[in-house]
Amino acid sequence: MKRTDRKSSCPINFALEIFGDAWSLLILRDVALFGKHTFKEFLSSEERITTSVLTDRLVRLEERGILRREPHLTDRRSSAYVLTEKGLDLIPALLDLMEWGTSHDPASAGHRKEAFLDKLRSERGPLVQEMKEKVRLGGAVLV
Amino acid sequence: MKRTDRKSSCPINFALEIFGDAWSLLILRDVALFGKHTFKEFLSSEERITTSVLTDRLVRLEERGILRREPHLTDRRSSAYVLTEKGLDLIPALLDLMEWGTSHDPASAGHRKEAFLDKLRSERGPLVQEMKEKVRLGGAVLV
Repeated sequence: MKRTDRKSSCPINFALEIFGDAWSLLILRDVALFGKHTFKEFLSSEERITTSVLTDRLVRLEERGILRREPHLTDRRSSAYVLTEKGLDLIPALLDLMEWGTSHDPASAGHRKEAFLDKLRSERGPLVQEMKEKVRLGGAVLV
Repeated sequence: MKRTDRKSSCPINFALEIFGDAWSLLILRDVALFGKHTFKEFLSSEERITTSVLTDRLVRLEERGILRREPHLTDRRSSAYVLTEKGLDLIPALLDLMEWGTSHDPASAGHRKEAFLDKLRSERGPLVQEMKEKVRLGGAVLV
């Protein structure tokens, strides 16, 4: 993004201009939390992103240095999207959204998630580092 | 929001369906971080939200229980928007966005902000509680 296009110099606005829309954040959730890496895997998520929105967001997130496209290890016709270091730094914000959603959604359950959130509340610093390292090495927060 | 409208049962999606767009998050930033509370104050922010988008987002955020509208203390023709408890619980996510933006925006500076972020990294739990209490009582994180 060209500097001159920015609406303000606020760091929160800076972040939101890069990934501040629901579809971008759902793609980043898919990569970081669920270990999804391919176009087909993103398309199959429950929220049913359309191919055109998905294409648009993947291009933006790659251009803005949040995702990196790599050749797929087993399917040569496919690409795998992984988080860059800048993208890995988004994991805390994703965990906060998960914590907020879990706390305020009356329909939210899942003991595994609750245990994870308890740990997040009590040992946030080390847990965030552990999660970043796990995702950096090809894993995912929740799998 | 009716439960049946939801695109998925994921807690992150739950959160994003409520406030997952840049303008909503900028309004929440204005309230929590800058202590802005009125339509006029939100309109005057550097990002230049339009009156129609602002009206739409304030209605949504109030309907979804994130903001509460109160009579303005000094201007009877005006309303003041304050964060509900559900809205106060968003402060950690806003702080994460601020941290991310400050870390990755080459144009970002400001020693006061840096000192604040250092404190956030080292004493996150107590600091978040302190910030929530400050905003709950009518203050703001950064003022």
